Amino acid sequence: MKINVLENQGVTAPNGFSAGSAMAGVKTPGRYDLTIVYSTVPATMAAVFTENIVRAAPVTVSQAHLKANQGRGRAVVFNSGCANACTGDKGAADAAQMTQTAAEALGCSGEEVLVASTGVIGAYLPMDKILAGIGAAAAAMDEKGGGTAARAIMTTDLIPKEIAIELEAGGKTVTIGAMAKGSGMIHPNMATLLAMVTTDCAIEAGLLREALGEACDATFNMVTVDGDTSTNDSLFVIANGAAGNEVLRGSADAGYREFVEGLTYVCKHLAQLIARDGEGATKYIEMKVEGAKSRQDARLAAKAVVGSSLVKAAIYGKDANWGRILCAMGYSGADFDPDAVDLYIGDVQMMDKGKALIFDEAAALVWLEKDEVRILAKLNGGEGEATAWGCDLTHEYVTINGSYRS
Amino acid sequence: MKINVLENQGVTAPNGFSAGSAMAGVKTPGRYDLTIVYSTVPATMAAVFTENIVRAAPVTVSQAHLKANQGRGRAVVFNSGCANACTGDKGAADAAQMTQTAAEALGCSGEEVLVASTGVIGAYLPMDKILAGIGAAAAAMDEKGGGTAARAIMTTDLIPKEIAIELEAGGKTVTIGAMAKGSGMIHPNMATLLAMVTTDCAIEAGLLREALGEACDATFNMVTVDGDTSTNDSLFVIANGAAGNEVLRGSADAGYREFVEGLTYVCKHLAQLIARDGEGATKYIEMKVEGAKSRQDARLAAKAVVGSSLVKAAIYGKDANWGRILCAMGYSGADFDPDAVDLYIGDVQMMDKGKALIFDEAAALVWLEKDEVRILAKLNGGEGEATAWGCDLTHEYVTINGSYRS
Repeated sequence: MKINVLENQGVTAPNGFSAGSAMAGVKTPGRYDLTIVYSTVPATMAAVFTENIVRAAPVTVSQAHLKANQGRGRAVVFNSGCANACTGDKGAADAAQMTQTAAEALGCSGEEVLVASTGVIGAYLPMDKILAGIGAAAAAMDEKGGGTAARAIMTTDLIPKEIAIELEAGGKTVTIGAMAKGSGMIHPNMATLLAMVTTDCAIEAGLLREALGEACDATFNMVTVDGDTSTNDSLFVIANGAAGNEVLRGSADAGYREFVEGLTYVCKHLAQLIARDGEGATKYIEMKVEGAKSRQDARLAAKAVVGSSLVKAAIYGKDANWGRILCAMGYSGADFDPDAVDLYIGDVQMMDKGKALIFDEAAALVWLEKDEVRILAKLNGGEGEATAWGCDLTHEYVTINGSYRS
Repeated sequence: MKINVLENQGVTAPNGFSAGSAMAGVKTPGRYDLTIVYSTVPATMAAVFTENIVRAAPVTVSQAHLKANQGRGRAVVFNSGCANACTGDKGAADAAQMTQTAAEALGCSGEEVLVASTGVIGAYLPMDKILAGIGAAAAAMDEKGGGTAARAIMTTDLIPKEIAIELEAGGKTVTIGAMAKGSGMIHPNMATLLAMVTTDCAIEAGLLREALGEACDATFNMVTVDGDTSTNDSLFVIANGAAGNEVLRGSADAGYREFVEGLTYVCKHLAQLIARDGEGATKYIEMKVEGAKSRQDARLAAKAVVGSSLVKAAIYGKDANWGRILCAMGYSGADFDPDAVDLYIGDVQMMDKGKALIFDEAAALVWLEKDEVRILAKLNGGEGEATAWGCDLTHEYVTINGSYRS
């Protein structure tokens, strides 16, 4: 299957989408911190939210709207600088008011609008600024507004994260655009604070939800920065049918697998960008596990390695301390035989069938000095495989998170 | 119940115990790195080992000896500087040879000796040095050798960790001594690399195991430094009956509760010392959860908070970013109502029944500037409570673990 990447495009790449952003001044004046992504025609929506039982107000409001509206919807309002989490009834009312104000400005119903917030937990939204920002963002709606939208959702991210692709599905060209923010409080079960996917594919809401779950499972749920699953994690998709394909209604329909593959492609791209741009990160880590008894065992093992503070610190220090890698797989919950494991950093083998090898430290250092460190464990116990992404643990991570509120 | 702490004493405080240490030069010449703790009379033993499925050779050898000998034993040999983990058949043979060599020097059977190693994973023991060290340690057996033994098991620990207490049990004075090393790769399900408890209490092996499990559950299993459960975690207890009390055989026997309380006391002391001396730590964190639906819910919530990189970094930075505390409890797996939570740092309340309070930042800073930061969450949902201990995440932790092998 051919996937055509559209350079420098994001959520407004698909037909029938626009985005408007504003400098609301939630936390820092003079930077974009509020954005609305909008389908100009009626659309279906799906979302995956945090599994943290402490759910921010925008999460509960978005869940309620999706349910009430049976997966139909038009827009998502995002703000950065304040997470509107741990804010009780007032927070819930504030989040609902954001959707209502956006709906009035856009000319749709409040339930067609979802909402997402990111930033400090436990602070109330400055509603005067937020509502003025929503008005300004709605007035700034632009079919080329995706790039600014991707910047508006950033917090400690250093680079905006967006992608757009084209593919053929059901005889039509379908476009998928997406953006995300990540950086900290990033851990599987929703591994990104906020991500938004748009597509002009025509697809029924239930099937869209299924497709999103499959894509998320292999991508956002395989990235970790610090092991902290946030209160606000939200991944949204809007599909507006503007591509003109026959509506996808079942997983056997022509074009569905292509659509899922495309959706997975953009989610994987963003998940990897989040790992690369982890707070304080100097190195991107890709951990691949092969030969596990099941895919789930492979997932557990791979995620534990990229989540281990000790592995992450060793990679920061370019130290081929591979025992920590095996140790992390060992406590991951994955079922495997330690005496069957082959382990590699780059192409240097450290362990052969569970036994330590005398390896060339200089050769290992060549691989550890790269910006991208690739680790491979062959468990030699089955066919399960998985890849997880993460970053190193650095002095800068500690600096950033020792003074996040300041 | 009265517990009398014996100042500056450890594993050789109880009657009938001695310890001998040696400078084997496993990793660094000129420091004690090998020790044997020995009961001069036959004794019962119990142990708790790592739940990591990657188990170091000394763990599997010790498990086999305990089982073969039905909980009878006399001695434990410890070395630091090399963990003898991921070392395959040769590692297992090396660990077994350590016990056999020690047994010959001490005049007991190999199965009466257990073994524990700590240090780099994936390296073979320098057996010539180790065996010479065992001979030297056995020759140096001393009834006052506990203090040196506590130093010999240190790796990145900054202070040796030992304690001894006396208590009355079954009409006799029973003494319990203990030592531990901790510092890194420390996480619940055995949270310490190595710990050793000695007692002159007379207690049957099965009941000793039960007592150790109960004490460990509330102490070592509630401390975390970095979330990494090691391959070598081992907690041993030897009980030699020299106190002359009637042998404890069942949990209803007079003196048993006192013994468990004393055992818990020494384990808690060492667990707290491990948290205080966590790698790179500048602050000790005590997280107490009250009012949980069950003790297990309280344990999960408390452990997640002291295990959160974001909470730990915020405390390092003296930042009252309490939202991260609630967030960590939220993803812990504990069942609670976020809208019922009261949260305090020191005596400053941050949250009341799930709602953020406007608190005095200067007052919070007074508590955050202390070396010991105490956090309290009242979940207001039941009677379960638990306390977990940990330390902050610092630049120094990253420095230490970026170059551990060097």
